[in-house]
Parts: sequence; structure tokens; C-alpha cells
Amino acid sequence: MDTLGIIGAVAMIMSGLTISIGSIAPALAEGRAVAQALSAIAQQPDEANTISRTLFVGLAMIESVAIYCFVVSLILIFANPFWNIAVSKMGG
Amino acid sequence: MDTLGIIGAVAMIMSGLTISIGSIAPALAEGRAVAQALSAIAQQPDEANTISRTLFVGLAMIESVAIYCFVVSLILIFANPFWNIAVSKMGG
Amino acid sequence: MDTLGIIGAVAMIMSGLTISIGSIAPALAEGRAVAQALSAIAQQPDEANTISRTLFVGLAMIESVAIYCFVVSLILIFANPFWNIAVSKMGG
Amino acid sequence: MDTLGIIGAVAMIMSGLTISIGSIAPALAEGRAVAQALSAIAQQPDEANTISRTLFVGLAMIESVAIYCFVVSLILIFANPFWNIAVSKMGG
Amino acid sequence: MDTLGIIGAVAMIMSGLTISIGSIAPALAEGRAVAQALSAIAQQPDEANTISRTLFVGLAMIESVAIYCFVVSLILIFANPFWNIAVSKMGG
Amino acid sequence: MDTLGIIGAVAMIMSGLTISIGSIAPALAEGRAVAQALSAIAQQPDEANTISRTLFVGLAMIESVAIYCFVVSLILIFANPFWNIAVSKMGG
Amino acid sequence: MDTLGIIGAVAMIMSGLTISIGSIAPALAEGRAVAQALSAIAQQPDEANTISRTLFVGLAMIESVAIYCFVVSLILIFANPFWNIAVSKMGG
Amino acid sequence: MDTLGIIGAVAMIMSGLTISIGSIAPALAEGRAVAQALSAIAQQPDEANTISRTLFVGLAMIESVAIYCFVVSLILIFANPFWNIAVSKMGG
Amino acid sequence: MDTLGIIGAVAMIMSGLTISIGSIAPALAEGRAVAQALSAIAQQPDEANTISRTLFVGLAMIESVAIYCFVVSLILIFANPFWNIAVSKMGG
Amino acid sequence: MDTLGIIGAVAMIMSGLTISIGSIAPALAEGRAVAQALSAIAQQPDEANTISRTLFVGLAMIESVAIYCFVVSLILIFANPFWNIAVSKMGG
Amino acid sequence: MDTLGIIGAVAMIMSGLTISIGSIAPALAEGRAVAQALSAIAQQPDEANTISRTLFVGLAMIESVAIYCFVVSLILIFANPFWNIAVSKMGG
Amino acid sequence: MDTLGIIGAVAMIMSGLTISIGSIAPALAEGRAVAQALSAIAQQPDEANTISRTLFVGLAMIESVAIYCFVVSLILIFANPFWNIAVSKMGG
Amino acid sequence: MDTLGIIGAVAMIMSGLTISIGSIAPALAEGRAVAQALSAIAQQPDEANTISRTLFVGLAMIESVAIYCFVVSLILIFANPFWNIAVSKMGG
Amino acid sequence: MDTLGIIGAVAMIMSGLTISIGSIAPALAEGRAVAQALSAIAQQPDEANTISRTLFVGLAMIESVAIYCFVVSLILIFANPFWNIAVSKMGG
Repeated sequence: MDTLGIIGAVAMIMSGLTISIGSIAPALAEGRAVAQALSAIAQQPDEANTISRTLFVGLAMIESVAIYCFVVSLILIFANPFWNIAVSKMGG
Repeated sequence: MDTLGIIGAVAMIMSGLTISIGSIAPALAEGRAVAQALSAIAQQPDEANTISRTLFVGLAMIESVAIYCFVVSLILIFANPFWNIAVSKMGG
Repeated sequence: MDTLGIIGAVAMIMSGLTISIGSIAPALAEGRAVAQALSAIAQQPDEANTISRTLFVGLAMIESVAIYCFVVSLILIFANPFWNIAVSKMGG
Repeated sequence: MDTLGIIGAVAMIMSGLTISIGSIAPALAEGRAVAQALSAIAQQPDEANTISRTLFVGLAMIESVAIYCFVVSLILIFANPFWNIAVSKMGG
Repeated sequence: MDTLGIIGAVAMIMSGLTISIGSIAPALAEGRAVAQALSAIAQQPDEANTISRTLFVGLAMIESVAIYCFVVSLILIFANPFWNIAVSKMGG
Repeated sequence: MDTLGIIGAVAMIMSGLTISIGSIAPALAEGRAVAQALSAIAQQPDEANTISRTLFVGLAMIESVAIYCFVVSLILIFANPFWNIAVSKMGG
Repeated sequence: MDTLGIIGAVAMIMSGLTISIGSIAPALAEGRAVAQALSAIAQQPDEANTISRTLFVGLAMIESVAIYCFVVSLILIFANPFWNIAVSKMGG
Repeated sequence: MDTLGIIGAVAMIMSGLTISIGSIAPALAEGRAVAQALSAIAQQPDEANTISRTLFVGLAMIESVAIYCFVVSLILIFANPFWNIAVSKMGG
Repeated sequence: MDTLGIIGAVAMIMSGLTISIGSIAPALAEGRAVAQALSAIAQQPDEANTISRTLFVGLAMIESVAIYCFVVSLILIFANPFWNIAVSKMGG
Repeated sequence: MDTLGIIGAVAMIMSGLTISIGSIAPALAEGRAVAQALSAIAQQPDEANTISRTLFVGLAMIESVAIYCFVVSLILIFANPFWNIAVSKMGG
Repeated sequence: MDTLGIIGAVAMIMSGLTISIGSIAPALAEGRAVAQALSAIAQQPDEANTISRTLFVGLAMIESVAIYCFVVSLILIFANPFWNIAVSKMGG
Repeated sequence: MDTLGIIGAVAMIMSGLTISIGSIAPALAEGRAVAQALSAIAQQPDEANTISRTLFVGLAMIESVAIYCFVVSLILIFANPFWNIAVSKMGG
Repeated sequence: MDTLGIIGAVAMIMSGLTISIGSIAPALAEGRAVAQALSAIAQQPDEANTISRTLFVGLAMIESVAIYCFVVSLILIFANPFWNIAVSKMGG
Repeated sequence: MDTLGIIGAVAMIMSGLTISIGSIAPALAEGRAVAQALSAIAQQPDEANTISRTLFVGLAMIESVAIYCFVVSLILIFANPFWNIAVSKMGG
């Protein structure tokens, strides 16, 4: 097994793991926030606007964590410096 | 075991793991949100429209996390740069 | 152990794991949504129609996550690009 | 250990794991839905028909997830393309 | 360790694991349903018939999941195609 | 380590694991059902007969799952087709 | 390491594991049932006889699961067919 | 590493594991039963005798499960048939 | 690594594991019983004597489980038959 | 497998793991804080401003923990001193 | 790696593990008992003496379990019979 | 694989693990504290100042634990004495 | 890898693990006790002295468990008899 | 892999693990204590001083556990006796 294979395999493994593991907590957190928002609306219908606004701000911050993982995952596939160097060394 | 086999095997493994692990949290989160929405409707039937609208926005954001994983999974099967280079190197 | 065996074995392993792991969360989420729907109907029988409609929309979205996994699982068995290339290389 | 043995062993392993792991969540989800239905009937006996109908629709959707796993499990035993190719190659 | 031993060992392992793992969730689900049924009867003794009927339908569906696993377990012991081919190849 | 030893060892391992793992869920489920039955009797002493009857039907169904595992466990010790063939092959 | 050692070691391992793992669930279930019985007696002292009778029937059924494991454990130590054959083969 | 060492090591390992793992559930179950008994006495001081009697019967049954494990543990140390045969074979 | 080292190492390992694992459940159970006793005294100060007596009986039974483990642990260090035989064989 | 491959593989593995594991807790914590904020607004609509301000301060502190992980993750990919030295040594 | 190193390493490993694992449950149990005692005092300040006395008796019994582990841990470091024999054999 | 590679790889692994594992608990703890603060403000709006001050003191102490981990993580990357010695030895 | 390295490595590993694992339970237990004390003070401000005194006694006993682990950890680093003997043997 | 590399690698591994694992429990415990303090202040604003003082004492004791781990972690990096001896032996 040569170095090129290792680099490629590890890049794929980490790309998949990063987005799959990294999506667990944001999804759960968003589900919790949405559920609580629905409960709050049912409790205080008159404050639906305030609740929705706070909810969207919160969802944006939670989503940002998922996007960190997605960015790292795509970097590992399409802009991987280790892979580029390994290919250039072997192609030389 | 040659490099081609490793790349292919890892691609399949991560493709499956990514979508299977990545589907756990979104499904649970959607189930929670839907369950809470039903509870909220039963509590405040007059606000069913507001609750449904908020629910659908929330489901869309949660579903987006699952779609990130699905996208990475399909990329690993059908548009895998590592596999393409490995095949082209061996076919040369 | 040759490359063909590895590719085939990995394809079977991931096919089974993908659908089996991927079915955990949707089933639990659907069970939760259905249970809450029954509770909501018992609480507000007059809103049974609204509750049922919201429940079916939610079940459809949750089921879609399970179908993602099922699609990947069948692709790995019946439309596996890695297997096709491995077979064609060995049959040549 | 030759390739034939590996393919056969993996097919059996995944067949058993797929149905056994895949049966956990549907069974739990069905148990939850049934338990909640019984609770709902005890709470609102007059709505037993509506509750039963919703319960059966929900059980059918949950059962469908278990059947996906059962289908994949039987495919791996009785209609396994990898095994067929492996046998034909060795019998040639 | 020859192929025959591997096939036999794997068949036994998966047969036992399939029924043992596959029996966890149905048993727990049935226990939950029965417990809730008893609670419901204590709460609404007049609806004991409706509750019992719904309980038995639910238990039948849950039991079906356990039977899927039992069927696969017995197939792996007594009607195992992989074992038959392995024995016939070695006995030839 | 010859094939006979492997077959025997695996048979013992799976026999023990099958009954020990397979006894977890039924025991817990029966304990839950019995506990709930006691609670129900304390709540509605007049319905003790109906509760006991439902309890016994439920315990019988849960016990059946444990018996599936016990049957497979005894088959692996005393009526093991793989062991019989392995012994006959070696004794020849 | 010869076959005799393996058979003996596996027999001891599984004997201990079977009874130790197999004792977890029955003990917990009995503890739960007894605790609930005590609670029920405190709640309805007049039904102590009915509660005790139902408790003892339930404990007997739960204990039976533990006894299944104990039986398999003793069989593996004192009436192990695999060990007998292995000893007779080596002593010949 | 000879067979004698393996048999002795496995006997010690399983002896310790059997009693240590086997003591978890009974201890927890007894703790639960005792705690509930204390709660019941505080709730119904007049029924302290009935509660104590039921408690002691329950503790005896739970303790019996721990004693099964203790018996197997001592058998493995002091009356181990596998060890005796191994020693006699080597001493000959 | 000779047999003597293995026997000694395994004896130390199991001695430590037996008492450390075996102390988890009794300690937790005693903590639960004591906590419940304190709660019961606060609820019914007049029954402090009855509660204390029942508590001490229960603690004694739970402590007995911990002592089983302690006994096995000391046997493995100071009265280990396997070690004695191994030393005598090597010293001869 | 040479040192360069190891350094590169480890850098990718840790980069992905750091951000994916490190995103679990902040996302959950933010979800909890947001959910509680929505609940608080529904309970005291007049204090929405105070609640929002406290929420944003808290989210900022929690987000800082996620950013620590993101920083380490990017350092490992783009400013990795170990990789630089390894490349310079090999390129010499 | 010689026998002396193994004995020493295992002694250190088990010494640390015994006290670290063995301290989990007693600490948690003591924390629970103390917490409940504080709650009881707040509920019945007049019974502070009885509560304190029962608490101290309970803490003493729980602490005894931790001391068992501490004793075994120190024995393994400073009064280890296996180490003494190993040193004396090697020093001879 | 030479010593330099090992030192570098281990340094990267521990740097990432330290900050990622070390960020779990502080983030959860801060989320809990913030959530409770919001709940407290909703309950006692007049004490918002006291609550905020106590919250900030608590957050600072919790954050300090995360900073311990961050410091160790950066030390392992940028001021690692083991790496420096290893490089100087190899460069000599 | 010589014996000296093994002894040193094991000593460091166990030293770190002992204090890190051993600090989990005492910290959680102290957190619980402190939290309950605060709750008790809020419930009965007049008994703050009695509560504080009982709390400090309890904290001292819980802290003692953490100190056992700290002592063993320091012994393994600075007063390790196994290391001393290993160094003296090698330096001779 | 020589001894120096092992000592260095283990020192880094344990340093990171000690502080990262050792920070879990103190952070959670502090979070719990702070959260409860906020709740207590909201419940009894007049006792804010007593609550704050008890809180700070408790936080100090919990923080001490984290500091034990931090001390051991820094000792392993900067004042490691095993490393010093290993370096001096190799430099000689």
C-alpha cells in the first residue's frame, strides 16, 4: 500500500466522518429549539413574532457549527493540500 | 491488496456510513419537532397555521443537515476525485 | 484475498449496515410522532383532521431520510460502479 | 481462506446483522405506538375508532422500515449477485 | 482453518446472534405494551375488551418482527445455501 | 487449531451467548409487566381477575421470545448439524 | 495451544459469562417487581394477599429465565459433549 | 505458553469476572427493594410487618441469583474439572 | 513470557478488577438505601427506629455481596491454588 | 509507509475529528440555551430584552469554545509545523 | 520483555485502576447520601440530629467499600507477593 | 517509521483530542448555566442584576477549565519540548 | 523496547489515568452536594448553619476519595518501587 | 522505535488525556452548582449573600480537583523524571 493510497483513503474517511458526526449535534439542537419554539407559541400566541425572531437567530448560530464541519469536509475532498503534494511528488 | 481496491472499498464504506450515521440525528430531530407540533396544535387549535408554518421552516433547516450528508455520500460514489485519479493511473 | 473479493465483501457489508443503521432513527422518530398524534387526538378529538394531516406530512419527511439510506443500499448492491470496474478488469 | 469463503461468510454475517439490528427500532417504535394507543383509548374511549385507524396507518409505516431490512437480508441470502459471480468464476 | 470450518462457524455465530439480538427489542416492546394495557384497564375497566383487542393486534405485529429474526436464524442452521455448496464442493 | 476445535468452541460460545443475551430483554419485560400489574391491582382491586388474565397472556408471549433463544441454544449444543458433519468427516 | 486447551478454556469462559450476564436482567426485574409490590402494599394494605400471590407467580416466571442460564452454565462445566469427545479423542 | 497456563489463567479470569459482574444486578436490585421498603414504611407505618416480610422474601430470591454466581466462581477455583484433567495429564 | 509470569499477572489483574468492579453496585445500592432512609425519616420522624432497623438489615445484605468480591480478590492474591502449583512445578 | 504519509494522514484525521467532536457540545449547549430562552420569553414577555441580551452573551461564550476547536482544526491543515518540517526534510 | 517487567507493569496498572475505578461508586453514593441528608434537614429541621447520625453510619459503610479498594491497591504496590518472588528468582 | 514521525504524529493527535474532548464539558456546563439564568430571570425579573453577576462569575470559572485544555493543546503544537529535542537530535 | 521503557511508560500512563478517572466521581458528587445545599438554603434559610456544617463534613469525606487517587498518582511518579529497582538493575 | 520515542509519546498522550478527561467532571459539576445557585437566588433573593458564599466555597473545592489534574499534566510535560533519565542515559 503506497502513500498515495493512504492519503486518499484517509481524506475520504475523514471527509465522511466529519460531516456525519458533525451533523448529529446541530440537528438535535435545532430539533430541540424548534420544538420549544412551537411549545412557546402554543403557550403565548401573542408573542409569536418575538419567538420566531429569537428562534431564527438561534438556528443561524447553531447552523454555523454544522457549516464549519461541512467546510472542513469539502476542503478535505476538493482542496486537500496533503493530496496535492502527494500527487505532485508521485507524478514527478 | 492493491491501491485501487483500497480506494474503492473506502469510498463504499464512507458513502454508506456517512448517510446512515448522518441520518440519525435529523430523523430524531424531525420526529421531535413533529411530535411537539402535534402537541401544540392539540393545545392551541386556533394557532394551527402559525405552528405549521414555523414547523415547516424548522423541518427545512433540519432536513438541510441530512442533505449535506447525502450530497457527500453521492460525491463519494459518483464523483470521487481520488477514484478517478487512481483509475487513470492504473489504466495508463 | 484478491481485490474482487474485497470489493464484493465491502459492498455487502455496507449495504446491510446502511439500511440497518439507517432505519433506527426514522423508525424511532415515526414511533414518537405517531404516539404523540394519538395522544393529541385523545386530548382534542375535534382537531383529528388537522392533527392527521400534520402527522402525515411529518411522517413523509421522516420516511424520506430512511429512503435515502435504502437508495444508497440498493445502489451498493445492484449499481455499484466500483464492482463493475473490478469485474471488467478481472474479466479482461 | 479463499474468496468464495469470504463472500459466503460476509453474506451470512450481513444477512443476520441486517435483520437483527434492523428489527430493534421498529419493534420499539411499534411498542411505543401501541402503548400510547392503549393509553389514549383509556383516556377517550369514544374516539377508539379514530385512534385505532391512526394507529394502524402508523404501524404500517413503521413496519415498512422493518421490511426494507428483511428484503435486504433475504436478497443477501438467496439473490446475492456477488455470490453468483464468485461461484461461476470458481466453477469455470 | 479451511473454508468449511469458516462457513460453519459463521453460520452458527450469526444464527445465535440474530435471534438473541433480535429478541431484545420485541420483548421490551411487548413488555411495554402489556404494562400499558394493564394500566389502561385499571384506569378504564369498562373498556377492557377494546383495550385487549387493540393489545393483541399490536402484540401480533411486534411478534412478527421477532419471527423474522427466528426465520433467518433457522435458515442459517438448517437451510443454508452457502453451507450446502461448501459441503458439496468438498465432498466431490 | 483444527477445524473440529473451532466448530466446538464456536458452538459453545454461541450457545452461552444466545441464552444469556437473549434472556435480558424478556426478564426485564416480564419484570415491568409484573410491576405494572401489581400497581394496577393496587389501583383497581375489583379488576384483579381481568388484570391477572391479561398479565398471564402477556407473560406467555414474552416468555415465548426467551424460549426461542433457549431452543436455539440447545440445538447448538445437542443437535448441531455442523458438529455432526465435522465429527463424521474427521472420524472417517 | 492444542485443541483440548481451547475447548476447556472456552467452556469455562462461556460458563462464567452465561451465568453472570444472564443474572443481570432477572435480578433487576425481580428487584423492580418486589419494589413495586412493596409500594402497592403500602397503597392498598387490604389487598396484600392478592398482591403477594401475583408477585410470587411473577417472580417464579422471572426466576425461570435465570434458571435457563444456570442450566446451560452447569451443562458447559459438567456435561459438555464437546469436551467429552475431545478428551476421548486425545486419550485414545 | 502451555496448556496448563491457559487453563489456570482462564479459570482465574472467569472466577473473578463471574462474581464481579454477577454482583452488579443483585446489589442494585436489593438496594432498590430496600429503598422502596423504607419508603413504604414511611408511608404506611402500620403495615411495617407485612412490608418487612415481603421484603425479606424478595431479598432472598434476589440473593439466590448472586449465590448462583458465587457458586460458579468457587467451582472454577476449587473444583475445576478442566484443571484437574490438565494437571493429571501433565503430571503423568 | 513464561507460565509463571502469566499466572501471576492474571492473578493481579483479576484481583484488582474483582474488587473494583464488584464495589460499584454495592456502593451505589447502599447510597440509594441510605438516601431513601434519610428521606423516610424526614417524612415520618416517629418511625425512625423501624426505619433504621430495616435499613441496617438491608445494608448488611448488600454489604454481603461486596464481601463476596473481596473474599475472591484476597483468595486470588494470598491463597491462589494455580499460583502455588505453578511455583512448585518451577521450583522443582 | 513513509513518515510524510503518516504526518499527512494524522493531520487530516485530527483536523476532521477536532472540529466534528468539538462541535457536539457547543451545538447542544446552544440548542439548550435557545430553547430555554424561548420558554422564558413565553413566560415573561415583558422581559424579552433582558432575556435576549443575556442569551446573546451566553451564546458568544459557548461559541468561543467551538471556535477554539475550529482554530486548531485549520492550524492542523494550513499551518502545520510538523508537516512543514517533514516536507522540508524530504525535499532536501 | 522479561517476566519482571510484566509483573511490575501489571502491578502498577492494576493498582491505579483499582483505586480509580473503585472510587467512582463510593463517591457518587456519598454525594447522593449527603445531598439527600441536606434535603431532609431542610424538610425537617427538628430531626437534624437523627438525620446526621444515620448519615454518618451510612457514610461509614459506603466509605468501607472505597477502603477495600484502597487496601488492595496498596497491597499491589508495597506488599506484592508475586513481585517479591519474581525479584528473588531473578536476583538469585 | 522513525522516532520523529511518531513524536510529531502523537503531538498532533493529542493536541486535537485535548481541545476537542476538553471542550465538551465546559460547553455543556455553560449551556446549562445560561439556560438556568434565563429561567431565573423569567422567574424573578427584579433580580436580573444579581443573577447576571453570579452567572458571569460562574461562566468565568467554567471557561477557565476550557482554557486549561486550550493551553495544553497549543503547548503541544508550538512549544513542545519533546519535539524540539527530537528535531535537534536528528539535525545533529 | 526494553524493560525500563515499559516500566516508565506504564507508570506515566497509570499516573495520569488514576487522577483523571479518579476525579470524575468526586467532582460530580461534590457538585451534587453543593447544588443540593444551595437548594436547601433557599428552602430553609434559618437552617443555613446546620446545612453548611453538614455540607462541609460531607465534602471532606468525598474529597478524601479524590485524595486517595491523587496519592496513588504521585506515588507512581515520584516514589515508584518498581522504577527504582528497574533503574538500579540497569545501572549496575 | 526506541525507548526515547516511547517515553516522549506516552508523556504527551497522558498529559493531554489527563487534563481533557479530568476537566469533564469539574466543569459539569461547576455548571450544576452555578445553575442551582441561580435557581436558589431566584427563589430566595434575600439570601443571595449566603448562597453566593456557599457557592464560592463549593466552586473552590470542585476547582481543586481540576487543578490536581492540571498539575499532573504539567508535571508530565515539564518535570518528567522518566524523560530526564531517558535523555541522560541516551546522551551519555
